[in-house]
Amino acid sequence: MTQQPVITTFGWVPEFARGLVRDMRPRWAFEEVGQPYAVDYIDIPFSKTPPHRAFQPFGQVPTYRDDEGEIFESGAIVLHIAARAGKLIPADTAGRMKAIQWLISALNTVEPRVMALLINDVFEADQSWSQDRRPTVLETLDSGLTDLAAALGDKTWLDGDIFTVGDLMMVSVLGGLRNTGVLDRHPGIAAYVQRGEARPAHRKAMADHLAALQATAA
Amino acid sequence: MTQQPVITTFGWVPEFARGLVRDMRPRWAFEEVGQPYAVDYIDIPFSKTPPHRAFQPFGQVPTYRDDEGEIFESGAIVLHIAARAGKLIPADTAGRMKAIQWLISALNTVEPRVMALLINDVFEADQSWSQDRRPTVLETLDSGLTDLAAALGDKTWLDGDIFTVGDLMMVSVLGGLRNTGVLDRHPGIAAYVQRGEARPAHRKAMADHLAALQATAA
Repeated sequence: MTQQPVITTFGWVPEFARGLVRDMRPRWAFEEVGQPYAVDYIDIPFSKTPPHRAFQPFGQVPTYRDDEGEIFESGAIVLHIAARAGKLIPADTAGRMKAIQWLISALNTVEPRVMALLINDVFEADQSWSQDRRPTVLETLDSGLTDLAAALGDKTWLDGDIFTVGDLMMVSVLGGLRNTGVLDRHPGIAAYVQRGEARPAHRKAMADHLAALQATAA
Repeated sequence: MTQQPVITTFGWVPEFARGLVRDMRPRWAFEEVGQPYAVDYIDIPFSKTPPHRAFQPFGQVPTYRDDEGEIFESGAIVLHIAARAGKLIPADTAGRMKAIQWLISALNTVEPRVMALLINDVFEADQSWSQDRRPTVLETLDSGLTDLAAALGDKTWLDGDIFTVGDLMMVSVLGGLRNTGVLDRHPGIAAYVQRGEARPAHRKAMADHLAALQATAA
């Protein structure tokens, strides 16, 4: 029997991080393609030790393994889950190129701007510059979201009617903006994120993600 | 006859950006796999107009097209060039997973930290917080480079003896640190970058990149 893929993630995170830990990305992808999986839970201190760093040098989560190999980086994991299942990536070359383009765009163009706001507002909240710098950080983010909204136009998903790994990653990255109020200024993007998060696979993944954290907290 | 792939990039950039524009990434990949290509040069103001944004909504470069499709995002372009040529990505599944993992790691874990320093030191240099914030930005970057150095160990490339798209992207991302002095504190990483940039394909790509900018400046 083929072994189920296994992901490693945190069994506990602070309140503000719940729903945002990147194991949500492979969880969502697994649900979309109908692939059962197992989860190894570790704690945050363990993630900084050599046994975990042997698999994830930056001391982060998630990591992934199946009977063919093991990797880290949520983007690479989602791409692998999709390719392995032959789903979430269009079969034609032009469509495949676009889906991967949007996945990389989410990770390399959009996420750095989202993270810059979270770093400013959470990790650098107590620093002297946090308030003064915030408008600069917001301006870069808003500009990117305006561009993204124009690219999305009135389409359901980034490439039209078909939900791809590109949408999965973009919606997941934009989910980092919940509670920031930023998406109130970008109704087209807000509706897009809502469509993504309303998918049964996302709901199931989020429920499992939160239930695991809840169980550990109890 | 099959048409050559075409990339679009800037014909002129300010001095500080020469050698750093992301067309270097597809150029390097093309040279590594032996694929001839053409270049469309545009100017920076044009990149912000609707005709360019129709292909690249964020108004960035490079973009790429061949007879099968068109995409943006240097990471997606490099991955496509490699997949199309059947080179720079190991043929076995475990090796392919790792190569793509490192490409994504370069783009999503390492580059945001490199860019944070360049944003602080170049784009926010005149801001009141730039000096005070610099140590915080450096600490995050140095921590990531220390982790990366441990992962590299004494190997030639990230996965051992074989140079992959993961190395191409990681070396390219780390190239953003030239002139910052940061790599002086990370000799293992500095030597790795030097090995990558000494490859004939990188030298050719850089020479072509600089020559094009030179020709326009003259």
